[in-house]
Amino acid sequence: MPELRLNVITRDWVIIATERAKRPDQFATSRAAGEPLPAFDPKCPFCPGNEGHTLKESLRLGDIHGWKVRVVPNKYPALSAEGERVRGGLGIFRSMNGVGLHEVIIEHPQHNTAITLMKSGEVADILNVYRQRIVDIKKDPRIEAIIIFKNNGEGAGSSLVHPHSQLAATPVVPFQFRARIEEAVRYFDDSGECLFCRTLRDELEAGSRVILESEHFVAFTPYAALSPFHTWIFPRRHAASFDLITDAELDDLAPMLKNVLAKMYHGLNNPDYNYSVRSAPTRDRNTDYYHWYLTIIPRVTKTAGFEYGSGMYINVSLPEESAQYLRDVVIPEQRK
Amino acid sequence: MPELRLNVITRDWVIIATERAKRPDQFATSRAAGEPLPAFDPKCPFCPGNEGHTLKESLRLGDIHGWKVRVVPNKYPALSAEGERVRGGLGIFRSMNGVGLHEVIIEHPQHNTAITLMKSGEVADILNVYRQRIVDIKKDPRIEAIIIFKNNGEGAGSSLVHPHSQLAATPVVPFQFRARIEEAVRYFDDSGECLFCRTLRDELEAGSRVILESEHFVAFTPYAALSPFHTWIFPRRHAASFDLITDAELDDLAPMLKNVLAKMYHGLNNPDYNYSVRSAPTRDRNTDYYHWYLTIIPRVTKTAGFEYGSGMYINVSLPEESAQYLRDVVIPEQRK
Repeated sequence: MPELRLNVITRDWVIIATERAKRPDQFATSRAAGEPLPAFDPKCPFCPGNEGHTLKESLRLGDIHGWKVRVVPNKYPALSAEGERVRGGLGIFRSMNGVGLHEVIIEHPQHNTAITLMKSGEVADILNVYRQRIVDIKKDPRIEAIIIFKNNGEGAGSSLVHPHSQLAATPVVPFQFRARIEEAVRYFDDSGECLFCRTLRDELEAGSRVILESEHFVAFTPYAALSPFHTWIFPRRHAASFDLITDAELDDLAPMLKNVLAKMYHGLNNPDYNYSVRSAPTRDRNTDYYHWYLTIIPRVTKTAGFEYGSGMYINVSLPEESAQYLRDVVIPEQRK
Repeated sequence: MPELRLNVITRDWVIIATERAKRPDQFATSRAAGEPLPAFDPKCPFCPGNEGHTLKESLRLGDIHGWKVRVVPNKYPALSAEGERVRGGLGIFRSMNGVGLHEVIIEHPQHNTAITLMKSGEVADILNVYRQRIVDIKKDPRIEAIIIFKNNGEGAGSSLVHPHSQLAATPVVPFQFRARIEEAVRYFDDSGECLFCRTLRDELEAGSRVILESEHFVAFTPYAALSPFHTWIFPRRHAASFDLITDAELDDLAPMLKNVLAKMYHGLNNPDYNYSVRSAPTRDRNTDYYHWYLTIIPRVTKTAGFEYGSGMYINVSLPEESAQYLRDVVIPEQRK
C-alpha cells in the first residue's frame, strides 16, 4: 500500500509510491565520466584572465589578480538592474517591468573544480559572498525576495561548467512564498512555535532521515521528501534569512554542504543537481515564524503530467532509505 | 527590459525574459525521426491480443475483440484501490494510507498512432471515456480530486510508446488546488464573476494570444504563460468539472485538441509534452468560481534552480509570439 505524506512546510501531499520504489543505488546516473576538464580554459568567460568578458563586478573576494570569488551580473539577465517598479496591465492582466538583479557567483578561479573538491575554507568564501550580497541587496527598496540557487550539470539547467551559482532578487514576493508563509504563520499562531524549528526537532527525534549533523546544522531527507534524495539543510538556530548567519555558523555550514554534496557525488555517480537557499521576503525581517534553509534536489527523476496537473508529487523512494543510503556513503580521501 | 506578468489563475509571477528570448522556431526539438514503429507490437501490453497482460478493465469502449478504448489499473500504481482512508503520523508528521485510483487509458488499439493522427471521432471516444470515468469515480466517497493527464514521450516521463493517458484519483485535495481556489473564491466574491470566465473574455478581446477557436472552446497561450508554448484550452461555457461537458462540447473538443497538438507536432518537430485536465475537487460541485480546463506543456525547456527556489517561472519566449507561431502552422493533409 502506498503512503501519502504531508510536507507541512511546502504543504504538498507526496505519494510515497512503495509499489514503484527503487533501491537507492538504482537512482545513480549511469553515464560514464566524460573527458576530464582542464584546470583553465582560455575560452571560458569565468576563468582568470577573462575578467574583461564579464560585466562589472558587484563583489570580489581577493585581489583582481588572484581573486577567490567574483560576483558579476548575468550576461543574459532575467531581471534588469535599472529602473523603478512600474505596474501595468489591462483588464484582468497584471504586469510589472522586470527590475531586479540577476547575478552570477563565480565560485572559484579553477575551471575544473566543484564544491565537493574544494577546501572547506573555499566553500566558506562562497557562503560569505552569498551573505554579503544579501546584506547589500536588502538595502534596495525595489527588492522583495532574494533567491540564491545553483544549477549543476546540463540536466539541472546549467550551460557553463565553470563552478558558479546564481542570485535572483525579485521585485515581487513569489506566490509560493506567500502561500507557504501563510501556513507557517497559522502554525505559529496556533502553537507559539516556528514550524521549521518544530520540524527540525521532530526530525532529530525520529533520527531515521538524518544524513549528517554538525554543531550548527542538520542535513536530512524530509519526512515527505518531494523526490528521491531531496535534502534539506536546516540551521539549528532560528533565523528568518540567510544574511543573519554568524561567522561560526558559516564556517560550520561549509564542510556540511561540501560533505552532503560529496555523498551525493559518490553515492549517485555525480548527479546533476540544483540547490537553493530560501529566506523570508526581504521586508519580513526578524520573523518568528520563518526559518531559512538550504534545499538540494538531485535530478534523478523527471516530473511529469501528474505533478503538472495536481501540484502533488510522486516519490519513488522511501525517504528513510534515501537518508540511510547517503548516511552510509563514505567519502574517499576527505579533504579538510 | 524584461517584463513580469502575473498569472492570475495560478498566481505565479512569470518573468518574460526578453533578453534571453528565442525565436519560436528555435524551440523545435532537433532530434531526427526515429525508426518507424510497427502498427502492432506483440510485446506491447497495450496492443490487441495482449489484453490478458493488463489488470482488470474498469471501462471499455467496444467489444473485447475490436475495442476502441480501454481503461485498466496501472500495473505499478501510485495509489491503491483497496482500503479506507486512515490518517496517521507522529508529532508534526502527517500521513494517510495511499488509497485512490491510478488508471491507464489505452487510447487506441493501434500501436503507432497518436491523437494528432486519429480521426476526430476517435479522439471524442477518448474524451468520452475520461468523462465516464470521472462520473463513476466521483461516487467513491474516498476520492477528493481527479486528475487526467498524459505523458507523451520519454522527456515527458512516459515509458511506453503505445498511445495512452492516465487518471489519478486522490484521497486528499492537493495544496496547489486549495491555494488557487482560495484566490478564485476571493476574485468571485470581489467581482461576482468567475476568474476563468473573465480571463477567457479578456484573452478573446486581446486576441493576440489565441491559437484556435471553435464553437465551444478557445485554445490560447496565457498572458503569463509559465513556459514556451504553454497552452490552455478553456470551455466557453462555465462548468467546474470535466464530467459536466455535454456531448456537443465533447465532439467539438476532439478536433480542437487534435489540431492544437498537430500544430505543436509540426511547428515544434514532435516535442515531448504533457497535458492535464483540471477540474474542481470532487466535493465542490456546481461551483460558480471554478472552471475546468485543459493545459498542454510542450517540454521544450528545463526548469532549474530558480524555479525550484522561488516557485516563479522564467519564460524565454513571448506568449504573443508563441501563439502567433502556432496559429500560423498549417497542418498538412488534415484528417477529419
